[in-house]
Amino acid sequence: MKPVVTSRSPFRVRKRIRFSHVDAAGIVFYPRYFELYNEVVEDWFAAALELPFDQLVDRLSAGVPTVTIACEFTAPTRLGEDLDFELRVAELGRSSFALLVDAHAGTELRLRGRSTLVFARLSEHGPLRPQPIPAELRGRMESFLA
Amino acid sequence: MKPVVTSRSPFRVRKRIRFSHVDAAGIVFYPRYFELYNEVVEDWFAAALELPFDQLVDRLSAGVPTVTIACEFTAPTRLGEDLDFELRVAELGRSSFALLVDAHAGTELRLRGRSTLVFARLSEHGPLRPQPIPAELRGRMESFLA
Amino acid sequence: MKPVVTSRSPFRVRKRIRFSHVDAAGIVFYPRYFELYNEVVEDWFAAALELPFDQLVDRLSAGVPTVTIACEFTAPTRLGEDLDFELRVAELGRSSFALLVDAHAGTELRLRGRSTLVFARLSEHGPLRPQPIPAELRGRMESFLA
Amino acid sequence: MKPVVTSRSPFRVRKRIRFSHVDAAGIVFYPRYFELYNEVVEDWFAAALELPFDQLVDRLSAGVPTVTIACEFTAPTRLGEDLDFELRVAELGRSSFALLVDAHAGTELRLRGRSTLVFARLSEHGPLRPQPIPAELRGRMESFLA
Repeated sequence: MKPVVTSRSPFRVRKRIRFSHVDAAGIVFYPRYFELYNEVVEDWFAAALELPFDQLVDRLSAGVPTVTIACEFTAPTRLGEDLDFELRVAELGRSSFALLVDAHAGTELRLRGRSTLVFARLSEHGPLRPQPIPAELRGRMESFLA
Repeated sequence: MKPVVTSRSPFRVRKRIRFSHVDAAGIVFYPRYFELYNEVVEDWFAAALELPFDQLVDRLSAGVPTVTIACEFTAPTRLGEDLDFELRVAELGRSSFALLVDAHAGTELRLRGRSTLVFARLSEHGPLRPQPIPAELRGRMESFLA
Repeated sequence: MKPVVTSRSPFRVRKRIRFSHVDAAGIVFYPRYFELYNEVVEDWFAAALELPFDQLVDRLSAGVPTVTIACEFTAPTRLGEDLDFELRVAELGRSSFALLVDAHAGTELRLRGRSTLVFARLSEHGPLRPQPIPAELRGRMESFLA
Repeated sequence: MKPVVTSRSPFRVRKRIRFSHVDAAGIVFYPRYFELYNEVVEDWFAAALELPFDQLVDRLSAGVPTVTIACEFTAPTRLGEDLDFELRVAELGRSSFALLVDAHAGTELRLRGRSTLVFARLSEHGPLRPQPIPAELRGRMESFLA
């Protein structure tokens, strides 16, 4: 199954709000927005960067942990609504990169976020060890610079 | 966005295993299987029974809480794999119905489950109040009897 | 922090229903019951079997995946309620063991479950490899036989 | 069950990292940090502000949706570790308030966040309707001003 990618550059993907996403008030519980935000990054790696997370982990023993994230939830989203997420690259450093992600329901903005991720080797214990972003991956990321 | 329904009767839908579904061993954490199982029922209501959960809650002030569920996980599923879920109706009572749901990765069975759900009015407090399954909904469910 | 263990044998632990556990109807969403069920097993390993999951994974490169689970949800549970879970061992095989777990709010039964878990070595890929339950662990489990 | 509040002012509560919180690398998956962050706010309302979320929803038909949140994850946290969360009030407006939340494992900072929440009436549909924070609640919040 391919994610429902509606545009490659800027990267756009559509997500439906599920029963599991909403709270007692029937609106998205914000930790679930971050699960969706992470899915968008996961879709971008698989569909646009050609490096699915399972290959990242298995082949490169690496990961892209999120080290900062800030999000504004501009209006509530309800069960059954579709959100159109858009992802762009704000900054591309040696081992870290910043993403801009927003989501609309129709024309209404629902969230606007920015996060910083680090390309890191996974070590069993101790701190993450940031690594230079591999050249090929970096090249693919460049075409998404905002 | 429509879910990736691959067959209407028996009802089949494909789900990708996400980073959020797996545990420290890299295999699906079983409470996440139940989130997926619930999504399959949600997809069936929206795509096959023409009664999306948001309409069920808003228009009918009703729900279909799961009252029993049993599941066998026959082999582990890893990050990035696609699971093909299939749903059939095992029994159709006055206010309750039993579902059979299984999931394969390719030809390998990964889970086989059976659950009983009740059609119930939502009351703010106190117990659930089971109601007869509305005739039109019941008619649509019948075509999925195993 | 120790979990709120209220009895060692039978093993009892109290869990509060959180905002993250409830659905649009304000009652526990059943996949969250399974997160709580898993927490009870985790608490039992840490507090009663003296083998916390992190040591199980790190020291023994092992895990205890759930291979079957069946649960009956006898009455809905609401935000803010406390559930008293009780765990007993139903069967103790060579590499697998069966658990009985129930939960009450006050005197009212809310769920009753039975699961089978396997003691297994973790391998990067391929199937789980069941292993004999280590003698010391098995000895501790025996005192929880129903 | 009372949450494990270790100090009332500043408000401190301890949370154990569970199997359900960690990802394939064995470290906390950041959407789970936000579930924990929300639990800290929930604990603060119940234990310090004397207005548990279930009463907020049932008695006042109100909620405190998060409208902005920013978090820095300064070091990874592993399965089995305990995090000491601390919550302070950064700003107290007419209907909104800003919180500062951080978490340490021992002396090491693991996350530092800031969020803005709005006191709002719950309406079935349409936008949230911000309301003045009730005087008694506001008075209790004041003693947590940073």
